[in-house]
Amino acid sequence: MDRFECLACGPLDDRDPYTPFCPACGEPVFVRPAGPAGGRRFREDRTLALERFAEFLPLERVDAGLSLGEGSTPLVRLDAAARRLGLAGLWAKNEAQNPTGSFKDRGTAVAVQKAVELGTGRFGTVSTGNMAASTAAYGARAGLKTFVLLKEGTSPAGLIGAGVYGPGLVAVSGDYGAVFEASLSIGRRLGIPFMNSIDPYRLEGYKLTAFEIFLQLGRRAPGTVVVPLSSGGHLLGLLRGFDDLRREGMIREYPQIIGVQAAPCAPLVRAFERGLDRWERIAAGPTIAHAIANPTPPGGNAVLRLIRERGGLLTSVPDAAMLEAQRELAATAGLFCQPESATTLAALKTLAGEGRLRPGGGDVVVVLTGSGLKTLHLVDPERIAVHRLRLGELEDGLARLAGAAA
Amino acid sequence: MDRFECLACGPLDDRDPYTPFCPACGEPVFVRPAGPAGGRRFREDRTLALERFAEFLPLERVDAGLSLGEGSTPLVRLDAAARRLGLAGLWAKNEAQNPTGSFKDRGTAVAVQKAVELGTGRFGTVSTGNMAASTAAYGARAGLKTFVLLKEGTSPAGLIGAGVYGPGLVAVSGDYGAVFEASLSIGRRLGIPFMNSIDPYRLEGYKLTAFEIFLQLGRRAPGTVVVPLSSGGHLLGLLRGFDDLRREGMIREYPQIIGVQAAPCAPLVRAFERGLDRWERIAAGPTIAHAIANPTPPGGNAVLRLIRERGGLLTSVPDAAMLEAQRELAATAGLFCQPESATTLAALKTLAGEGRLRPGGGDVVVVLTGSGLKTLHLVDPERIAVHRLRLGELEDGLARLAGAAA
Repeated sequence: MDRFECLACGPLDDRDPYTPFCPACGEPVFVRPAGPAGGRRFREDRTLALERFAEFLPLERVDAGLSLGEGSTPLVRLDAAARRLGLAGLWAKNEAQNPTGSFKDRGTAVAVQKAVELGTGRFGTVSTGNMAASTAAYGARAGLKTFVLLKEGTSPAGLIGAGVYGPGLVAVSGDYGAVFEASLSIGRRLGIPFMNSIDPYRLEGYKLTAFEIFLQLGRRAPGTVVVPLSSGGHLLGLLRGFDDLRREGMIREYPQIIGVQAAPCAPLVRAFERGLDRWERIAAGPTIAHAIANPTPPGGNAVLRLIRERGGLLTSVPDAAMLEAQRELAATAGLFCQPESATTLAALKTLAGEGRLRPGGGDVVVVLTGSGLKTLHLVDPERIAVHRLRLGELEDGLARLAGAAA
Repeated sequence: MDRFECLACGPLDDRDPYTPFCPACGEPVFVRPAGPAGGRRFREDRTLALERFAEFLPLERVDAGLSLGEGSTPLVRLDAAARRLGLAGLWAKNEAQNPTGSFKDRGTAVAVQKAVELGTGRFGTVSTGNMAASTAAYGARAGLKTFVLLKEGTSPAGLIGAGVYGPGLVAVSGDYGAVFEASLSIGRRLGIPFMNSIDPYRLEGYKLTAFEIFLQLGRRAPGTVVVPLSSGGHLLGLLRGFDDLRREGMIREYPQIIGVQAAPCAPLVRAFERGLDRWERIAAGPTIAHAIANPTPPGGNAVLRLIRERGGLLTSVPDAAMLEAQRELAATAGLFCQPESATTLAALKTLAGEGRLRPGGGDVVVVLTGSGLKTLHLVDPERIAVHRLRLGELEDGLARLAGAAA
């Protein structure tokens, strides 16, 4: 039997599996750590992430058959950027290498185990893209009837990327926040657990990213972790992961956690900078960063609270800076991520210049949340120079290019 | 100093790093295993594949900074398909989870280490898509001036997927086989090692897939391995990997290796079925399977020889069967691969029905070579049903869909 807690109200006696919110205060519910502190271990001989970190997950048993091999993503050095920014160590945690190309798979992998346990044979999510594909894939694998609610106007790539797994794909016109809310009550009535962005089991999956970073750095906490911020689920999951590491005595100091929003839609940055405890609804401007453009972030107040308590910070970057950072990651590090993921490097460049990274530093990790292959339409074709040559012109042409580029 | 050999001519005294061919007979050159049989071990405590299998690679030292974390891909159960086909065990080795979304990264990761050693500061490839992106990514990471020669008519997705890393991108009009040949001599003159499909160092990288399958099955060889077949490089690399395992005494029996071509462009299947030692140039028909449509496969004769010696077989599948298998893998296993990758399941269905799999069986592994995100344009949008609902209609609509789907 899993145990839950609310940051404000404390332990919960009971939990409705169809909502991620505390019945008393409406804030997100978290899974409570099980057992006494210091009693949990990693099973480093296991290759499947869900098994490797099983003692930290609310799963009595892991059904490996439901897994797609999520997690265990590379931590890749960004030496060129580190030199330019004067950082001792800079790394990218490349979540694009998950089964459906984004970090969402870590959360879905845990959520789907619970959806199967629930026994209704159904499963669903509300998403702008990455979570749609992830939920559709895991739902198909588990043999669940899967429902994916998308915003009207989702890109064809987004529709295909989720639709190929054969879910019930529904484009809902109306406010995204309202659809999120409606999905929970409708889901309860129809027996469809809508495991959306801040579902407590999803967050348990995101914790594993913190554990992997710790192991990949040689059993050491990074000094700073930078992560894109939308609903708050991913950032909250990472925070919970570092909480677990501290609870188990594996780390002493908490990393500086930095959440990055898209400047045209940054309600949490606004609240953070004004010193508010709660975010306020904003009129969002247009942005290419659909995956992180949530004007009504359900985990937002929890993010504000925990970021303050742990000495983190929130910031935002404009679209042009994301695209520039996306190009830089591809052309200097060989990593092609979504523009939303590149917000992390873009923010880091500004923050390092302003001296806002934790003094004394340590390793800085940027979390790249999704693959650039999902958003090819956002790459400006004008920037892709294609030289057209006949075979007979090839040698001279290459010599010229090699010289010009030298 | 690496040592090389030719299947026909034996050990080579010397090797020109700018060509993958034996100077005497024109067939592919392979790296010779180093040291006495039985002396090599896996370093299973290492997470980076290049380090884990370093004793089996021709690298005096691994520069981990050049790696993108390739390899260590999941082996995913395909239980539903196994039941339908009456197989004891069926698995997908999901190479789509490599850094640029295809198996090519394993080969490029080894090749780039050698390109850097060569010291010209340049690097190149001739490709229809997957290898273009892979070479551009690793070249960018290594700081090499990188040249990618593509066929005229490469899809916009293919151009962007490689171009985003900033290589010299050249669309060459003319016969693909002739461009392949020309790249080698031009490369030698300009100091650009063109490490194309059957480069011997690339093949060393592909060996690692065999090692991982062996470990993931619990230190056991599979009964059958099915892999898409084009130039021959991937299949030859897998064969060499199983050779190494037998040489080290880790396996006794060789798996049945099955290579699958696209029916409209299947020169090796034609030669195999006619009992020929050498392939003949064919007039290829149109196919969606660009990644495996090579009418002049440079490793083809080596493939014919080794497939016969080891008791494997070659077969082909039409486009419609690949697309059907692609849908099946997504909708029942949660795996979205390129149509070329799905040739493996499509072929397996036919071969199992015809009783052509090795009797006594054992585990069957299909190698899924690349991500479906690279070929979204090949998914028929007519097959992606999108239901459009207003928020107020959502509950009734979902109830209807849930009922209809039940």
